[in-house]
Amino acid sequence: MLKSPTNPKGTRDFLPLELSKRNYIINVLKKNFKNFGFSEIETPALEKNSTLLGKYGNEGDRLVFKILNSGDKVKKADINSLKSNDLSSFTKSLSEKGLKYDLTVPLARFVSQHQNEITFPFKRFQIQNVWRADRPQHGRFQEFTQCDADVIGNQSIIQEIELIKLYDSVFSQLGFNDLVFKINHRSILKGLANHFGANDNLIDFITALDKLDKIGLDKVIEEIKYLVKGISVNELKKLLSERDLKLDSLKSLLSNDKNSFNAINDLSEIIDFFCHSNKLNNEVKFDLTLARGLNYYTGTIIEVSSKNNDRLGSIGGGGRYDDLTSLFNLKNISGVGISFGLDRIYLLMDENKMFPNYLENSFEFMVANFGIENLKKISPYIEKLRDMNKEVLLYPDSVKLSKQFTYANKHNASFVIIYGDNEREKDVVILKNMHTGEQSTHDLDKFIGIIQKI
Amino acid sequence: MLKSPTNPKGTRDFLPLELSKRNYIINVLKKNFKNFGFSEIETPALEKNSTLLGKYGNEGDRLVFKILNSGDKVKKADINSLKSNDLSSFTKSLSEKGLKYDLTVPLARFVSQHQNEITFPFKRFQIQNVWRADRPQHGRFQEFTQCDADVIGNQSIIQEIELIKLYDSVFSQLGFNDLVFKINHRSILKGLANHFGANDNLIDFITALDKLDKIGLDKVIEEIKYLVKGISVNELKKLLSERDLKLDSLKSLLSNDKNSFNAINDLSEIIDFFCHSNKLNNEVKFDLTLARGLNYYTGTIIEVSSKNNDRLGSIGGGGRYDDLTSLFNLKNISGVGISFGLDRIYLLMDENKMFPNYLENSFEFMVANFGIENLKKISPYIEKLRDMNKEVLLYPDSVKLSKQFTYANKHNASFVIIYGDNEREKDVVILKNMHTGEQSTHDLDKFIGIIQKI
Repeated sequence: MLKSPTNPKGTRDFLPLELSKRNYIINVLKKNFKNFGFSEIETPALEKNSTLLGKYGNEGDRLVFKILNSGDKVKKADINSLKSNDLSSFTKSLSEKGLKYDLTVPLARFVSQHQNEITFPFKRFQIQNVWRADRPQHGRFQEFTQCDADVIGNQSIIQEIELIKLYDSVFSQLGFNDLVFKINHRSILKGLANHFGANDNLIDFITALDKLDKIGLDKVIEEIKYLVKGISVNELKKLLSERDLKLDSLKSLLSNDKNSFNAINDLSEIIDFFCHSNKLNNEVKFDLTLARGLNYYTGTIIEVSSKNNDRLGSIGGGGRYDDLTSLFNLKNISGVGISFGLDRIYLLMDENKMFPNYLENSFEFMVANFGIENLKKISPYIEKLRDMNKEVLLYPDSVKLSKQFTYANKHNASFVIIYGDNEREKDVVILKNMHTGEQSTHDLDKFIGIIQKI
Repeated sequence: MLKSPTNPKGTRDFLPLELSKRNYIINVLKKNFKNFGFSEIETPALEKNSTLLGKYGNEGDRLVFKILNSGDKVKKADINSLKSNDLSSFTKSLSEKGLKYDLTVPLARFVSQHQNEITFPFKRFQIQNVWRADRPQHGRFQEFTQCDADVIGNQSIIQEIELIKLYDSVFSQLGFNDLVFKINHRSILKGLANHFGANDNLIDFITALDKLDKIGLDKVIEEIKYLVKGISVNELKKLLSERDLKLDSLKSLLSNDKNSFNAINDLSEIIDFFCHSNKLNNEVKFDLTLARGLNYYTGTIIEVSSKNNDRLGSIGGGGRYDDLTSLFNLKNISGVGISFGLDRIYLLMDENKMFPNYLENSFEFMVANFGIENLKKISPYIEKLRDMNKEVLLYPDSVKLSKQFTYANKHNASFVIIYGDNEREKDVVILKNMHTGEQSTHDLDKFIGIIQKI
């Protein structure tokens, strides 16, 4: 094996610095999820194909990584279906399991399977990898991490309010204050489609709206004109061009539609909550054009983007869905959830140097090595430092001090602890500040106290 | 789809309580790994088959989960090899990638691939899932978590000393003080085999020794007698039965063998380190019969087990290996590492009720719901509590208080915060201790301070 090996295309190795930045984000997420009363669960990477397939459309099914049956089971390969070019049946004869494609279908499976072990409303978060057999390309990965928080089994808009607060809390702690949390409601989009006579083209109508940011108002209107013959173009144009459209002005427009009316009231109440003493660090805003694709949402929808950097697209999104678990034989369970786009948040934070500097240190202290007898003597003090939760690396070889310093510098260590024969004789220890180059000498029995004060 | 779905056999869903206990262990591991100067890395679940296969023996290769090529690529299925029952070639024609089988081979691949981006000695830890297509059975899983810490590119016994300290630190913090860290050295086993004329049967000889705990001395002697005709049974028997065998007594026995001699010195120095001021909470002990299977170890080997509960077997193990990365074209890099058996540690801790009680709480505080107007007023205080890192769940519906209390109790909440119309009128808040049933009333503006003191 002469060629150097590499990880598969579309996957990533995480080296220490990149991983510590990723984990910094993940730790802020976890802390906030817990503080908002969410409990963590995990589901396996492997799911039965019967759980995964048929939930994401044909294209999605194609992108599910399938596990080849092991051992003698491959003998059951259905060669006839291969010969007749029925690849789906051929694949079926070779595979019973796949890698999870998202966290949502496994959640629905989990809730259905464990319905008697959990209490509703069930607030869970989950931060795990998912896999998609997409063609690897810049910024798209076959293996990536999803970060989701969902509430299953409750219809109160308190959940939407709490989820918006959760977004604000996480993003504030990460250093963002220029974000906008756009909200809309599927019933409003439906009411709008009805109003403009697009009832029969609801999904196409929504899909067209969803493109507003990408292709602009004129092209969207073109598309819709083509969909709905004789649509009142001017009214629609006016509505869509008003980027600060108020919910109230929609009320009269959609007054005949009870669902829209209720949705407008719900959104008003949500936005209202964040006035006065409950102001957010970022902004929450109704956006009639927010549509969030063609997925399972049925109620509120929400999306997070940066006001100053929309090149990246949204860095989070979610919404309310009725009856997701009915896929798995558990009916009438409403859910609402949000997710955080870890990779995009990372990119934004890295570009804008929003990560704390200390993440650059592999460790804070390095103990120089002057032979095992000196190490024996200093070792109980190293233990104390570690008990104080200090990161201390012991240089393994008793070599030239300059070489040891080089290693410390390469790892961005803040201090080197020097305890050689001289120091041992005098019962002192030298602390070298690697950033300033300063050295200070301390009595051995006082030096833990000194470090405690750093 | 009428049948309730389940996760695949051999995999696990982790519900909140079990996961919080697992994560408790993992967090102690991570903290200690970092405090000992290890940096975290991650490698993908997916690896090329060329990386994975041929490293674990035929049986291992069979147990690697292979990913079915996606889309049109399955057309390349080699039907002829299926017909001639050459399943390995058939599989090869259908799969290019697999799921990682352990963390060691990916580490070797990682170090080889990124050798110019890392600094040696490279101290890394990794806590990730691995997959094996084992037949699912009690206590064996197809998907499980490995927790490894390794030092790559350094031969100093300081590494062994630090790794033993790391074991002791982690296990002490988890509450263990009855463990024994058995150590041995492959060179000593080799020297022993030479001494008893088993040079040609080294691996069989080691395998036989390794069974001592399981099958007992007499049966081991039987096996070795069969391997090595004319072996001096009495001498071997005496050696193996002396469970407190001192290293010094081996010195004369193996004095002709330089490697054994050096190994004995190394082990002596390691054990010596932990006398006097560097005493461990658990015990480190030379054990001539420790062999650790037939893997890649070439130097020191180490294994952790409980003195009072050896039914479970070892809960950790590791050792030194030369030249692992030479598999991937990077020669002469010595490594040494240990791993922690997460599932077994969990079982031991759970059986012995070693997990802290607070893990049973889903959240510490629940805010009772008396309608949105009251919530608006109390919400800034909830935010303060969460900023203090308190876990606070807001009950979503304004229903009977008894129902809300039931939810709090089911989640083991310690306190319920009560702020209804009455309290709002008087500018007070009631704090109900759910364990004692006591209620106390506090001025709204003082109640954060009260909680801070809890």
